[in-house]
Amino acid sequence: MTSALASQMELAQVVDGGLAHVEQAMRDATDSQVNVLRDASHHILNAGGKRVRPRLMLLTYLTLGGTDLDYIAKPAAAVELMHTASVVHDDINDHGILRRGRPSVNAIWGRTFALLTGDFLFTAVYELMASYGDLNVDLARAATALVEGETLQASAVKDKRFTREIYMEIIALKTAALFRAASAIGAKLAGADPSQVRALSDFGFNVGMAFQIVDDILDLVADEEKLGKTSGKDLMQGRGVAVAMNAGNGSGAADPMDAVKRKLLEGDTLEKAQRQAEFLVERAAETLAMLAPSPPRAALEELAWMVVKRER
Amino acid sequence: MTSALASQMELAQVVDGGLAHVEQAMRDATDSQVNVLRDASHHILNAGGKRVRPRLMLLTYLTLGGTDLDYIAKPAAAVELMHTASVVHDDINDHGILRRGRPSVNAIWGRTFALLTGDFLFTAVYELMASYGDLNVDLARAATALVEGETLQASAVKDKRFTREIYMEIIALKTAALFRAASAIGAKLAGADPSQVRALSDFGFNVGMAFQIVDDILDLVADEEKLGKTSGKDLMQGRGVAVAMNAGNGSGAADPMDAVKRKLLEGDTLEKAQRQAEFLVERAAETLAMLAPSPPRAALEELAWMVVKRER
Repeated sequence: MTSALASQMELAQVVDGGLAHVEQAMRDATDSQVNVLRDASHHILNAGGKRVRPRLMLLTYLTLGGTDLDYIAKPAAAVELMHTASVVHDDINDHGILRRGRPSVNAIWGRTFALLTGDFLFTAVYELMASYGDLNVDLARAATALVEGETLQASAVKDKRFTREIYMEIIALKTAALFRAASAIGAKLAGADPSQVRALSDFGFNVGMAFQIVDDILDLVADEEKLGKTSGKDLMQGRGVAVAMNAGNGSGAADPMDAVKRKLLEGDTLEKAQRQAEFLVERAAETLAMLAPSPPRAALEELAWMVVKRER
Repeated sequence: MTSALASQMELAQVVDGGLAHVEQAMRDATDSQVNVLRDASHHILNAGGKRVRPRLMLLTYLTLGGTDLDYIAKPAAAVELMHTASVVHDDINDHGILRRGRPSVNAIWGRTFALLTGDFLFTAVYELMASYGDLNVDLARAATALVEGETLQASAVKDKRFTREIYMEIIALKTAALFRAASAIGAKLAGADPSQVRALSDFGFNVGMAFQIVDDILDLVADEEKLGKTSGKDLMQGRGVAVAMNAGNGSGAADPMDAVKRKLLEGDTLEKAQRQAEFLVERAAETLAMLAPSPPRAALEELAWMVVKRER
């Protein structure tokens, strides 16, 4: 075994250990005295998920020389719980009944408790981060952006103004901002200098943009079983990357659904979207060039490529 | 004019000035680039409200010698926005169509946008407090308690287990915890010593308990026009102080609604509840005795009595 391969295997163990800490931190933070909040939170946490946001934070932290995987566990848990909160509320608004291969919280506990469980996950984030000082500025901004992105999306669908520009703004707010915060917090906790924090923030942002584009492609092409969540919601609701790619620049109106679906299946819309996601990851990878090569830097780059090459 | 009266009038001006700062901080924190979030937030903020939580924080701060009304404005705004967020989500779950004398956010913008507006108000709280360090521990705990209280209430109604003990636990979590945080943060920002912080926290907690009991009485006896919100919801939904007072200790089941309503109108349930609220305020007022008399201390005591004597 080469020493490079050996140190990569060692890194994988470190990352797995760190992610196990994150899982524990998420369970602890949601261990409410109120049964339904604990049960519903643990239901969705136990379903797993890709954990791409905490992985991004962890790898950023390690790449910049961080070593205390216990200290990073809580912010990494916070960033994943923030995402989980938004997913629980999404499934109310979108009537999603399947999530991570399980019935959604909404489907099992009903709308009232799903709303409260999402709120509880938000407050769990707040509690987890309360003693982390100014890092809260990064996460709070991302939290606001996330809600703004979701709202902009619902508004655009309602007003039938789902253009490419609005699509890019939506995914920047609802997804890429939280990826950026994950990287920024990982970098800051590792004691990175401001130029490194900026570079890694850009890295996270671009990976987040790519992640959402691919997510939207998978929503169209993957079957529900593989995807583990209610699919085809985007098209049904007049949104997502395909609707945006077909709407033209600033045309102000999406085609009726049937026409869009026909276009998608015939045209090269999805290939174009996939290429755009890959372009974003290339740009992200370039940002890493300012850092000395190392196993965590390689793993960070690999994570970025995994985001565009995944099938679920 | 006596000098005591003169200094009381001076204090009233200071408090009004401080509250004007709070209003501005709330408007600024909710001035989203996304129209519907800004409009819905400003709709409910413009409707006014008693602002009892920021007033409590301000008066606690002044009583303990605080002077910088600009610095206290953001935490005071955060505590009121936290309450406002929960109100917006409440009106979804309870189908409340009237709030603060206006149509609820839910009634105007519909469920999807009401859910997102509540989320946005939560994240606005988080952003407002992000640079206030460990004070976030107090507010984050109160936020979690608030959601736990609302959930415990919905669970108790669903399981028909609306006993006095559970009622007291619910209002401690959903209301008194945030009042306690308001006082604790006001005291800490004024540089109070730990025993003063504890005393004022207890004061806030007891005033919060009394406030919720009186709120629940008003829900039964006041008409909607005076109250400015959909009333009678508690009884309709099998909860609130009256249902709890009639359920007996640990009996495990509330009477059917008709029987409860008859009992309420005949019996002394509401007088008993009112006496309990007044007892809590007496206990709260006693806590203030450890502090030297001053116009803000008198105003704080007056606020506590206002809470039980109000008619809306």
